[in-house]
Amino acid sequence: MTASREEALARDAADPLRSLRDEFELPEGVIYLDGNSLGALPRRTAARVATTIEGEWGRGLIRSWNTACWIDLAQAIGDCIGTLVGAAPGEISVGDSTSVNLFKALSAASGLQKSDAPSRTTLLSERSNFPTDLYIAESVAAAAGLKLRLVDAGDLADHLNHDVAVLMLTHVNYRSGRMHDLADLTRIAHAAGALTVWDLAHSAGAVPVDLLGAEADFAVGCGYKYLNGGPGAPAFVWAHPRHTARMDREGLRQPLSGWLGHAAPFDFVPVYRPASGIGRFVCGTPPIVAMKALQCGLEVFAAANALGGMTALRAKSLALTDLFIARVESICAGQGLELTTPRDPALRGSQASFAHADGYAIMQALIERGVIGDFRAGHAETGEQNLMRFGFTPLYTRYIDAWDAADILAEVLGSGAWREPRFHRRAAVT
Amino acid sequence: MTASREEALARDAADPLRSLRDEFELPEGVIYLDGNSLGALPRRTAARVATTIEGEWGRGLIRSWNTACWIDLAQAIGDCIGTLVGAAPGEISVGDSTSVNLFKALSAASGLQKSDAPSRTTLLSERSNFPTDLYIAESVAAAAGLKLRLVDAGDLADHLNHDVAVLMLTHVNYRSGRMHDLADLTRIAHAAGALTVWDLAHSAGAVPVDLLGAEADFAVGCGYKYLNGGPGAPAFVWAHPRHTARMDREGLRQPLSGWLGHAAPFDFVPVYRPASGIGRFVCGTPPIVAMKALQCGLEVFAAANALGGMTALRAKSLALTDLFIARVESICAGQGLELTTPRDPALRGSQASFAHADGYAIMQALIERGVIGDFRAGHAETGEQNLMRFGFTPLYTRYIDAWDAADILAEVLGSGAWREPRFHRRAAVT
Repeated sequence: MTASREEALARDAADPLRSLRDEFELPEGVIYLDGNSLGALPRRTAARVATTIEGEWGRGLIRSWNTACWIDLAQAIGDCIGTLVGAAPGEISVGDSTSVNLFKALSAASGLQKSDAPSRTTLLSERSNFPTDLYIAESVAAAAGLKLRLVDAGDLADHLNHDVAVLMLTHVNYRSGRMHDLADLTRIAHAAGALTVWDLAHSAGAVPVDLLGAEADFAVGCGYKYLNGGPGAPAFVWAHPRHTARMDREGLRQPLSGWLGHAAPFDFVPVYRPASGIGRFVCGTPPIVAMKALQCGLEVFAAANALGGMTALRAKSLALTDLFIARVESICAGQGLELTTPRDPALRGSQASFAHADGYAIMQALIERGVIGDFRAGHAETGEQNLMRFGFTPLYTRYIDAWDAADILAEVLGSGAWREPRFHRRAAVT
Repeated sequence: MTASREEALARDAADPLRSLRDEFELPEGVIYLDGNSLGALPRRTAARVATTIEGEWGRGLIRSWNTACWIDLAQAIGDCIGTLVGAAPGEISVGDSTSVNLFKALSAASGLQKSDAPSRTTLLSERSNFPTDLYIAESVAAAAGLKLRLVDAGDLADHLNHDVAVLMLTHVNYRSGRMHDLADLTRIAHAAGALTVWDLAHSAGAVPVDLLGAEADFAVGCGYKYLNGGPGAPAFVWAHPRHTARMDREGLRQPLSGWLGHAAPFDFVPVYRPASGIGRFVCGTPPIVAMKALQCGLEVFAAANALGGMTALRAKSLALTDLFIARVESICAGQGLELTTPRDPALRGSQASFAHADGYAIMQALIERGVIGDFRAGHAETGEQNLMRFGFTPLYTRYIDAWDAADILAEVLGSGAWREPRFHRRAAVT
């Protein structure tokens, strides 16, 4: 328990990861608690992108596909991501958006089950999964002849029966920050004969993940949240090698069969023949400039590895959310806040979410005071509450940030500052 | 007919578009004739991207979705592209790769036909279409219960019968540079009851296109060729408003139903409801940094509009390819070159391709001498020859470049310099 501002400062001074904050450009006067939506800018990114644009593109022109190894970039970045999520080199493909990669993974999983267990008719997911996951699942389910069934998180295990073809879950819930036990649910799903597709959008770079250890089936993840790849950064997709090996043997494909997922793209033959392994999940030409930015974000994790890596980052993440939750509950009592993030560390991702009916206006008042989190609207029909989300990125968030953010939240609530009409006007993006 | 080097220089001096070359960074000692594969770097791009990264991302952080209008960027860029291809404001969606957008457009076209004309079973295309188009078509055809039929370009009209659901063509062939008559084939397709999906990868920014005038159905295009958006730049998709209006009325969707294609993405509701118009073709979070680079490429076309726009660019493009073809045929006679690009301007895109069995090595020797084109391998089974491609981008290519490139090609061929073994070693990307 941190009892004072001085104690928070002392924890920062003693933090073995404190040097990592210097890897980031962070504006003065801002406490940034929205790295779960858009990660902060690594210091090295601007120069790397400038070199890519002026040198590799401008002077190297088309030659840079070979001379600057652009053609190998997606694979190199995939291998870096693999070290964060428990995948082996060569198992991750980088490119496209999370939604597009989820379409590939879900289609592949559904296709395998259609062949192995055609009687299974359910694609199971969580009711409060991130909407894009549910929207893509609707589409894949319709194409594969499956029925999308949405249940509450606590009821998932009960619904994993002989009718489930695929279980699709986001590892850490984007609203509540509640984390599933990836290994346990994968085991239960496999025992029921289902395949798993995991969305690691709020996990990769935030919490330890061991895809191979859990024998998971498919996974996707996001490049612009905890991986700090920049707005709209390329996403990634992983498939367990037992599935890609089988797809190799049986010539199976996923539907987005673009030319760079061909076994020999530069032969320019008219008939598609999928590349082996994860290569068949590649589609079009990779976005080089955006991938160079993502690479910079991943290099910061390489620096973190010398300081304890994901284990140390996870310990600090939990300490930060513990501090913030305790301090908020201590000084904002009676102000109508309700913690929706689990207190149990085993169930908590790297964020703390508080429900409040006027969360939108309160968050706007906080942002004006330099505390940047975000707001996610609730829905009466699903019982979801209006939420304020505070994301904690152990690479650059300090204990003093958690302490001060709680104090500023208490000030906003105590003063009623958020009641000003201007804080209630909705922006285009919330 | 240009008769001398001096005359080529005089044509450049008199060229009303000559100032546009100053909009680009072009390395000294290079004649760049591969803008049909990767367009050159606009001068304004590096600074714009630096501002996006350092200011908007680094300092603005998540707020920039609103304050820097990131959320409106895809639409703004789409409207710029619309002016080049004959689409109205609000009709083009920018983002994802060409392959992914083709998947959306082909799926939508097939879906409409499945509803209107379920007895039609053919997806018709050209045998020598760009492979990614054929690979994606294979996939969509399999999902939609269609058969992909590939014929020679000259036989397309004969195959447009009552069995064709969708005609999918690339407007300008990536190998030969042969251009289809988009309006005429669209008319024939419609008369036969088929819908058209046009790939404008080698057209947008290179030749005039009038999608609305031709009453075409769907189109996609590439951001990194003649639009100069950078390696792997976002692509675009267009649908005629009569189709999007119908999709609105009937609640139809394309399969990549990601969250930003939702009617109200920031309501975060669990059930997908497509955005109206072209909005339903949006999928995941847009790649902001890459889109800013693409925007710079399009601003150069805005500058070109004051100098005659696509009409003037087209006239110069044809003059450049005329000059190059005439000069090559005059000074490389007997060296085994065979022009595969149509001499008829009405059938010619913005490139000149010459077949030569040893095209790969000859191109490597040219590149070493600063003349950068590219090579596309032929295939005995389809009768395709090995090709050298020379792309002419009227925004920055000069008459003297066409003249000198022909001279250097004649030198390489006449001296047999390309016979050196090192020019025969294949690189990863050709």
